[in-house]
Amino acid sequence: MVRDGDVDAAVVPIENSVEGGVSATLDSIATGQSLQIIAEILVPITFVLAVREGIEDLSQIKQVSTHGHAWAQCRLWAEANIPGAVFSPASSTAAGALGLLDPEQHHDAAICSPLVAEERGLKVLVRGVEDNLGAVTRFILVTTEGKIPAMTGVDKSTLILPLAEDRPGALMGILEQFTARGVNLSRIESRPTGEGLGKYFFSVDVEGHVGEERVAAALSGLHRLCPELRFLGSYPAAQGAAPFIDTHNSDEAFIDARGWIQSLRDRL
Amino acid sequence: MVRDGDVDAAVVPIENSVEGGVSATLDSIATGQSLQIIAEILVPITFVLAVREGIEDLSQIKQVSTHGHAWAQCRLWAEANIPGAVFSPASSTAAGALGLLDPEQHHDAAICSPLVAEERGLKVLVRGVEDNLGAVTRFILVTTEGKIPAMTGVDKSTLILPLAEDRPGALMGILEQFTARGVNLSRIESRPTGEGLGKYFFSVDVEGHVGEERVAAALSGLHRLCPELRFLGSYPAAQGAAPFIDTHNSDEAFIDARGWIQSLRDRL
Amino acid sequence: MVRDGDVDAAVVPIENSVEGGVSATLDSIATGQSLQIIAEILVPITFVLAVREGIEDLSQIKQVSTHGHAWAQCRLWAEANIPGAVFSPASSTAAGALGLLDPEQHHDAAICSPLVAEERGLKVLVRGVEDNLGAVTRFILVTTEGKIPAMTGVDKSTLILPLAEDRPGALMGILEQFTARGVNLSRIESRPTGEGLGKYFFSVDVEGHVGEERVAAALSGLHRLCPELRFLGSYPAAQGAAPFIDTHNSDEAFIDARGWIQSLRDRL
Amino acid sequence: MVRDGDVDAAVVPIENSVEGGVSATLDSIATGQSLQIIAEILVPITFVLAVREGIEDLSQIKQVSTHGHAWAQCRLWAEANIPGAVFSPASSTAAGALGLLDPEQHHDAAICSPLVAEERGLKVLVRGVEDNLGAVTRFILVTTEGKIPAMTGVDKSTLILPLAEDRPGALMGILEQFTARGVNLSRIESRPTGEGLGKYFFSVDVEGHVGEERVAAALSGLHRLCPELRFLGSYPAAQGAAPFIDTHNSDEAFIDARGWIQSLRDRL
Repeated sequence: MVRDGDVDAAVVPIENSVEGGVSATLDSIATGQSLQIIAEILVPITFVLAVREGIEDLSQIKQVSTHGHAWAQCRLWAEANIPGAVFSPASSTAAGALGLLDPEQHHDAAICSPLVAEERGLKVLVRGVEDNLGAVTRFILVTTEGKIPAMTGVDKSTLILPLAEDRPGALMGILEQFTARGVNLSRIESRPTGEGLGKYFFSVDVEGHVGEERVAAALSGLHRLCPELRFLGSYPAAQGAAPFIDTHNSDEAFIDARGWIQSLRDRL
Repeated sequence: MVRDGDVDAAVVPIENSVEGGVSATLDSIATGQSLQIIAEILVPITFVLAVREGIEDLSQIKQVSTHGHAWAQCRLWAEANIPGAVFSPASSTAAGALGLLDPEQHHDAAICSPLVAEERGLKVLVRGVEDNLGAVTRFILVTTEGKIPAMTGVDKSTLILPLAEDRPGALMGILEQFTARGVNLSRIESRPTGEGLGKYFFSVDVEGHVGEERVAAALSGLHRLCPELRFLGSYPAAQGAAPFIDTHNSDEAFIDARGWIQSLRDRL
Repeated sequence: MVRDGDVDAAVVPIENSVEGGVSATLDSIATGQSLQIIAEILVPITFVLAVREGIEDLSQIKQVSTHGHAWAQCRLWAEANIPGAVFSPASSTAAGALGLLDPEQHHDAAICSPLVAEERGLKVLVRGVEDNLGAVTRFILVTTEGKIPAMTGVDKSTLILPLAEDRPGALMGILEQFTARGVNLSRIESRPTGEGLGKYFFSVDVEGHVGEERVAAALSGLHRLCPELRFLGSYPAAQGAAPFIDTHNSDEAFIDARGWIQSLRDRL
Repeated sequence: MVRDGDVDAAVVPIENSVEGGVSATLDSIATGQSLQIIAEILVPITFVLAVREGIEDLSQIKQVSTHGHAWAQCRLWAEANIPGAVFSPASSTAAGALGLLDPEQHHDAAICSPLVAEERGLKVLVRGVEDNLGAVTRFILVTTEGKIPAMTGVDKSTLILPLAEDRPGALMGILEQFTARGVNLSRIESRPTGEGLGKYFFSVDVEGHVGEERVAAALSGLHRLCPELRFLGSYPAAQGAAPFIDTHNSDEAFIDARGWIQSLRDRL
């Protein structure tokens, strides 16, 4: 919808502390018309067990519906507490929840967010059925390419890096561009390109902003190695502290070096 | 079931050329009681569109059911050919297919394997509805820990590598253990440990067998860096050629070096 | 004399294929007022044995004089052919040769260049007394800092690199600046700084010209790591072929990368 | 003489904090019959100006004799204090000193060690004429190959490393063997092999003893890269502290890793 101009921006999940990268998002922003990330937010994950009217006890539950990802995050709870219930996949957690109001559907419980349960007035039998307390999903705010948010000192940049060659040295060559300038990675996800086993692209987040010299230098080195890389934006980090920067990776060091090279080239 | 001793071995999908690593398998073999991989096989992926009796034409299809992964692999075909059909998730492609025989279910088409359609005598309207021709899924044969299959010259080894430290240098340190001995990676998948954003383990396949000196040396170096790594087996590769090995990474070079060190230590 | 303005330029030996770097030259250009190298030339090394009038046969030679460096390059010949002769060090090979004309001096033979022997009309008993046939000395043409010679395609650049930190990683960090841009080294000499054991600077020659993007980028990286480095010039190489340059290290790759970064920064 | 069996051991200078590596020693131990270093000692460098009888004042000195290396270390003092004196090279500092007692020789001053001056009863006009206070020469005790001295915890090992290939990557490959196991270098000297410009071997000292796992592992890796390397011994360091060793480079880590690999190979 962002690409079609139907909306100005979209909030989509990119990463989950339990399930990992969200493939649909990672793949969607990796190809097609260029988009950009302008903000991120971390959302704690919690689920409730909502039930159909008439269900008073866990032992009555025969079929439970929810999205596959939500099911994966509550499986241990379900095995321990509703061992006899059959899982029925829904297209979303909300769809599974709303199904409880539909007499034609057969499930008698749904795993969904507390918000959906509350808004639709569903009966909640158990709260906090998620297996990992403290789990969190990271959402990004995506727009079409445009102005990059200003540096705040605690920023992130997101990149899509196709691996040009099928060898470990290629990945090392990429990582060296970061380490050589003291740029830390906060996320690295491998994703298949779909062109065959062993063909990947990497989706990475780095700590820093393209407005910083060290980040720009790493990007420049990456562009030489894989010109088809994609820059998905620099934006304020949702949490974390300003990165430690060695003297030789400071903006001053880069600017001094550039001035020195220019002084040599002026003698040509 | 393998862990419980109910079966001797299991064939499970680990990687798909379109969707990438199979998270359930990767996570399952990464933790818990140690298992081992003793073989792999590549299976071409193809899907058919099976329909309920009475459906003669694509335009009649209102609802189509299949597993989410299969749906993801046929989405473009579906958008182009049955744009009006609603997707109804099934717990497996076989379940969706069998649902066509159940008068209580509402979908009038299912995406499933040709084999299931044939065995159940389902009516097939279209063959080859997958978006990526040539797509393949890699299955592994998993047993409890035991005898490692003999070297064939074209082998693979699978490892689970927790990333001890949260920095790019840590991943580089791991990759260097391979490149320093000329060991190629044929797969690298990042997976969250579930302990928070930015905490990963890596699931990797390397070309070679633990019976080779260079592979054993790389494993030894990895063990020093992350003693909690997991070796999931060496086994014949389903395809590919014998890797090229530099003289200084040959078994002879390692054995000569060891003999030389011993000759020095004999002088202590 | 160049520094004092007494002469415009000096031709001095910097490297010898037998004895290695010429310490006096290396140290002299490494510190003090900045100089620059604008050309190099390779001179084959050959020595003759000149003798005092009256000497007709090697067996008559009791004392032979020459500079220590020349002596080192003819030692094996001397041990084999004039085993009884005592070595008497001279301040230069020419001084030793001229001493043969001085009745007050006691040596009856001198090892010197054919040219000196010819110019002074000395009697030459044996030609080609050097131990290493094909040995060569490399001379450089040194001036005060000024215009850098134009690129020819087969060029060299000379650098003085102080090692800021006393650890092997520091030297690796320096070498990586070259390898990361595909810049080959044709010479690397370690020299003590004179400030204590284990304190070095490195004198290196690289294949390439500061006018090339890849060389400028390596220099820029080095400047960040050791701002006190010294650039001693880019100049035509005396021999050799144009270096092979990977696509990602070409001028085009650097210029494209810079343009891309600028396009990102224009969005700030 | 050690090689000929004339003496059991020799004390020879290998490195000087002012002049750098002693080429004659470095080259001599790098080739020919294998020798070993079993101890090292640091000797402070100081020189006196001894004069011929009758010389009472610096202004009377017309010619000063000493070895070229000693002259290099006192040149600034000489330029400042005896600017008119001509330098006459001697084959050793002792030879120059003894020449003061020889009426046939023409120099009226010699730069030599205080010990020689005292033993021969020479008149000393000035003490401490060396330019670098605190300069030191490192001597090694060399024997034929045999028993290696026991580990003390503060040890050194000396190696000769031919550079198999003429490229910077080759030197990096060598250095990586050390850094990968946390082995520090305390000296690295490049020396020409004599086979042409750009052909080197490296003479290096590392902190550690071949009895340590991490040093043995680095040596083993080096042997694979350049089987013609030469191990010149492990011996107590003359100064310094025990090196800091990361957990993953400890003897325990290596032994554990070896045990783990063995447990895998037992399953073959």
